[in-house]
Amino acid sequence: MKTYLDCLPCFLSQALKTGRIATTDEKTQREILDQVMEKLISLPLDASPPGIAQLVYGTVKTITSNEDPYAAIKKTQNELALSFYPEFKKMTQESEDPLLFAIKLAIAGNIIDLGVQREIKDIKKEILETLAAPVAVNNYAAFKNTAMNSGLILYLGDNTGEIVFDRILVEELKKMDAKRIVFAVRGKPIINDVTIEDAKFVGMDKIVEIIANGSDAPATILSDCSSTFIELFQKADMIIAKGQGNYESLSDEIKNIFFLLKAKCPIVADHLNVNVGDSILKEQSR
Amino acid sequence: MKTYLDCLPCFLSQALKTGRIATTDEKTQREILDQVMEKLISLPLDASPPGIAQLVYGTVKTITSNEDPYAAIKKTQNELALSFYPEFKKMTQESEDPLLFAIKLAIAGNIIDLGVQREIKDIKKEILETLAAPVAVNNYAAFKNTAMNSGLILYLGDNTGEIVFDRILVEELKKMDAKRIVFAVRGKPIINDVTIEDAKFVGMDKIVEIIANGSDAPATILSDCSSTFIELFQKADMIIAKGQGNYESLSDEIKNIFFLLKAKCPIVADHLNVNVGDSILKEQSR
Repeated sequence: MKTYLDCLPCFLSQALKTGRIATTDEKTQREILDQVMEKLISLPLDASPPGIAQLVYGTVKTITSNEDPYAAIKKTQNELALSFYPEFKKMTQESEDPLLFAIKLAIAGNIIDLGVQREIKDIKKEILETLAAPVAVNNYAAFKNTAMNSGLILYLGDNTGEIVFDRILVEELKKMDAKRIVFAVRGKPIINDVTIEDAKFVGMDKIVEIIANGSDAPATILSDCSSTFIELFQKADMIIAKGQGNYESLSDEIKNIFFLLKAKCPIVADHLNVNVGDSILKEQSR
Repeated sequence: MKTYLDCLPCFLSQALKTGRIATTDEKTQREILDQVMEKLISLPLDASPPGIAQLVYGTVKTITSNEDPYAAIKKTQNELALSFYPEFKKMTQESEDPLLFAIKLAIAGNIIDLGVQREIKDIKKEILETLAAPVAVNNYAAFKNTAMNSGLILYLGDNTGEIVFDRILVEELKKMDAKRIVFAVRGKPIINDVTIEDAKFVGMDKIVEIIANGSDAPATILSDCSSTFIELFQKADMIIAKGQGNYESLSDEIKNIFFLLKAKCPIVADHLNVNVGDSILKEQSR
């Protein structure tokens, strides 16, 4: 998916939001906006939005010398989501179709995204609302069939907090026949995206292999990933890609991918032909 | 009111929105964003937001050679609002306090604003909702008292469509003792702000004097207005200022001003210490 003109004002908003988390100095915040605008002027938009976001967030990091502005927030999100784990795990186990329930839960967890504009006031309430709503694009039969017939499943994580709900889905996937499941995280801190530290914090490393993709984009931009990761990506029989960033960066990839996300911005929603707020379980058409 | 950092991404969104109305050529739309960013970089933010908006919209005008991108939309808004006139006029006349009702109606009409991000789907429905809601800042007693004791009232209009509801309020003001009421409009087309043409289209010129302020800012920036207008502004016993733009540009002015508006963006809402969506009838403290 390419970058749209609508993304430019949004990048500026994201830079300001992150700048304010990284520093309270208004002059530095202004410097961030000015430098981001300088970089955006004349910039080709054929990269995917997270490709440009990487440049935008990189600017914030460089100017503020803060490599991980969201560190404290990420910890809080993981802790909060972990506190919900027992209740949602029980709901999954007691549901009619635990795999389907876990998928819906993993999609619902995708509301915990600090790269988008909307603020979430009550995470648990919103998750319950998403669970109650229908899935707008629902390729569940294909998902289940593919998961049952895959030797290697690569699960691309997205955000902190959300990763706890991913764990519940990974636990359901482990009951199936895959010989190997690998959970991938970003290579370095970027927004509230998951890193190795988060995967360990929520115990993902205790149940499956974990791997860092080697990139600090809020997405899976293959050309920016490590060779080890790319090799794994190519070998995988099934890719489960969480969130908008992974969708934006992989929507043109020819591969057996299932995108699980909440459509959170109008541009991604348009690209998926759904409404903002919709839950998506979309099989990549090859 | 000064310009905040949050206004910068918003200016970019407004430039894109207007660029898309002015031209369907995506390269030109991109050129608009690039030139606006170039102008915003390092720009001092001590001007009020509409002062910078004037620069932003001026860029769109220059690049597209389209002096009035909103011309067709403004006509539609006036026609639509005029079709509501008989019903709302009757409601005003039958209300317990026609002046108060007309004020609330004039505030409600302020939702018809294309400079803000939110789209209005059903204008009549939203107006009825605003009429039913309480006024968050309500200096009605002072307004009525001042209107009763003013020889010259200067009413600063804001948007097309909205001007029909302003007419109903002006008709109520005419029943009071003011010797002279003047309705002011912008000097040139800017967004969907009212000009002389709109005032005539809704018959405002038939009931009171009308004057163009000489400026093409979406506001009343006195330093940019004609000397005739400034003189009138200084002489007026009471200023009625409609909308966010007039508030942003006159909030620091030492003058007998009553601001009537809907708070439509978080920055203006914060400045007024109210919530987005609130109705405001605020007396300027002198």
